[in-house]
Amino acid sequence: MQRITPQNLRTPGPTPIPDDIVEAMTNPMINHRGPEFGEMIHKATEQLKQVFMTKNDLFILTASGTGALEASIVNTLSPGDRVIAATAGAFGDRFVDMVEAYGADVKRMDFEWGGPIDADAIRKALNDDPSVKAVLVTHNETSTGVTHPVEDISKVVKGEFGKLFLVDAVSSLGCIPLPVDAWNCDMVGTASQKGFMIPPGLSFISVSEEAWEAQKTAKMPRFYFDLTMAKRYLETGQTPFTPNLSAMYGLSRALDVLLEEGMENVFGRHATIGQFTRDGAKELGLELLVSDNAYASNTVTAIKVPEGVDQKALLGKMRTEHNVVLAGGQGRMSSDIFRIGHLGAVAKEDITEVMDALKVVLPEVGFKA
Amino acid sequence: MQRITPQNLRTPGPTPIPDDIVEAMTNPMINHRGPEFGEMIHKATEQLKQVFMTKNDLFILTASGTGALEASIVNTLSPGDRVIAATAGAFGDRFVDMVEAYGADVKRMDFEWGGPIDADAIRKALNDDPSVKAVLVTHNETSTGVTHPVEDISKVVKGEFGKLFLVDAVSSLGCIPLPVDAWNCDMVGTASQKGFMIPPGLSFISVSEEAWEAQKTAKMPRFYFDLTMAKRYLETGQTPFTPNLSAMYGLSRALDVLLEEGMENVFGRHATIGQFTRDGAKELGLELLVSDNAYASNTVTAIKVPEGVDQKALLGKMRTEHNVVLAGGQGRMSSDIFRIGHLGAVAKEDITEVMDALKVVLPEVGFKA
Repeated sequence: MQRITPQNLRTPGPTPIPDDIVEAMTNPMINHRGPEFGEMIHKATEQLKQVFMTKNDLFILTASGTGALEASIVNTLSPGDRVIAATAGAFGDRFVDMVEAYGADVKRMDFEWGGPIDADAIRKALNDDPSVKAVLVTHNETSTGVTHPVEDISKVVKGEFGKLFLVDAVSSLGCIPLPVDAWNCDMVGTASQKGFMIPPGLSFISVSEEAWEAQKTAKMPRFYFDLTMAKRYLETGQTPFTPNLSAMYGLSRALDVLLEEGMENVFGRHATIGQFTRDGAKELGLELLVSDNAYASNTVTAIKVPEGVDQKALLGKMRTEHNVVLAGGQGRMSSDIFRIGHLGAVAKEDITEVMDALKVVLPEVGFKA
Repeated sequence: MQRITPQNLRTPGPTPIPDDIVEAMTNPMINHRGPEFGEMIHKATEQLKQVFMTKNDLFILTASGTGALEASIVNTLSPGDRVIAATAGAFGDRFVDMVEAYGADVKRMDFEWGGPIDADAIRKALNDDPSVKAVLVTHNETSTGVTHPVEDISKVVKGEFGKLFLVDAVSSLGCIPLPVDAWNCDMVGTASQKGFMIPPGLSFISVSEEAWEAQKTAKMPRFYFDLTMAKRYLETGQTPFTPNLSAMYGLSRALDVLLEEGMENVFGRHATIGQFTRDGAKELGLELLVSDNAYASNTVTAIKVPEGVDQKALLGKMRTEHNVVLAGGQGRMSSDIFRIGHLGAVAKEDITEVMDALKVVLPEVGFKA
């Protein structure tokens, strides 16, 4: 294959990989059942717990983020279990589809795309239906650029009702605060290609004591994503199935870098660049999908395609003429918005470059400020 | 993390990665929903079909080989379906566990570890029980170094009985001939870290027309491994979930290299080095686990731990004093054998180095020739 020219890759994952992490990934293969791997996975697991802010068990899976979310479902639930799945975007929808695929009895709660999931509505639903066993929510809805109020939702789900609480944190963990223990989240899944600055291919999942309790009677079938097996193997410094070693090397380096910077600083950096992106878009006369800044995501910003603008032409010109890769919308919003990712290894200069290019391209594709 | 010193890694996967493939893997991240990725996955899929010798559909999954095997099961079967799962080693056992986990009604057929699965026994079992829907076998049993006679078994399973035929080819495909169409295999799964000379993290699976037919009524739950979704996305040059891009870059390079060499030559090279390894071990006075050379695997050789030899000390000294990493046994044979992997990017010199080191170490750990 021909060498790929680096782009200003502003999709909300995969994100650009810093050179030292790329270098780490070129380490030679080792025996994944040998002592070097044991040392590596133990250290990475402990470091990941710091990023998750949890004392819970935590596992590294060789799969995309969706795999970790599937693990959260199949390890805690049985077919026929009543669950609430709240959605306000394409990834919320995916979580619904997933738990339905495994035979749960799903009460789907739809919230406006671009707005937050409402904790009060969930309280009402839980009051109405005591048979609910678990509540599923997305922390950061990548498709709309909304950070849902997981802390508030947890106060209801865990604090008031004591239900199982499963959280999709694929595009937030390591970028936006999600203190797993403080917020009492039972299962939290995320992936490698976002805040962790490494390629896609690994996902991470934390498991609370209550989740393990649920696992004892959970009857959804599982093998590749069976966390009992993962736990047994991890005790001997292994994974049940051959792990993605190159990504593990990258992860080891990335975790050193993140923890050296300090998670508070990492979160602060994301907050700053998120605001910088939203301000920049508004200065260009663009309208954000998320009207309430309190819920605006600090990892991805969705912008409404302005009246008269050809979204495909916009994204095409940004890519081919300015080397800037933006994302379109997803699901039912595919052509209504475009999105700018600003997570992981991203500098203000990258965002300035995006805004400068938008300034040139927008008028060329029908934009009248 | 500290740089890892390259070893003579002779585990049956992960296998050493050639420099040009490592280099390919350092390509920058791209949008996995953009045109560059579409081109890459279409080309890699077509090339993989050449390696699989099939016109069937074929999918690249972000998961270890076990994930592809789980996909073969959950996409074709329903809970309660009667299946025969033949096993003669740890990976055969894993296939049994997997199909049982998803609720199949399994007739388990055990064959001697170190010997082949017997096609005649499968014929008898199929005659005795017409309700069987599918037969599951391992092509190359990594834990014992046996290549099972898949062609003979297929003549029975497909030719005589027309049952579904699911094949674990994790440690054979791309090294040992497995012409998927000629041998009429419905689902064949394999992984990246063996003959394909790239790191673990991707797996590949082919799907016959009959398997798709079975899929229409297959009721085992699936989401991450749902191949209907994979097929729909592949039509647009995408995967349903974020793919392992770095491994895809490596795969693209590896497929160019393999197909340029020509699969017949690749198979010939593995046959030569397999025989060279077995001959070398016998010259040292060691006894092979597989007594019948006709079934000896050309990707991995299992050697009996000689009377009086401390297996752990042997493997430890080989690693720490000679930089040669061998594998122990697996499952119930963990301490009875040790194994030498000779697949992927391996040269005769690597095996000579192993034999030279064994010659020194064996007497030190209790071996009397």
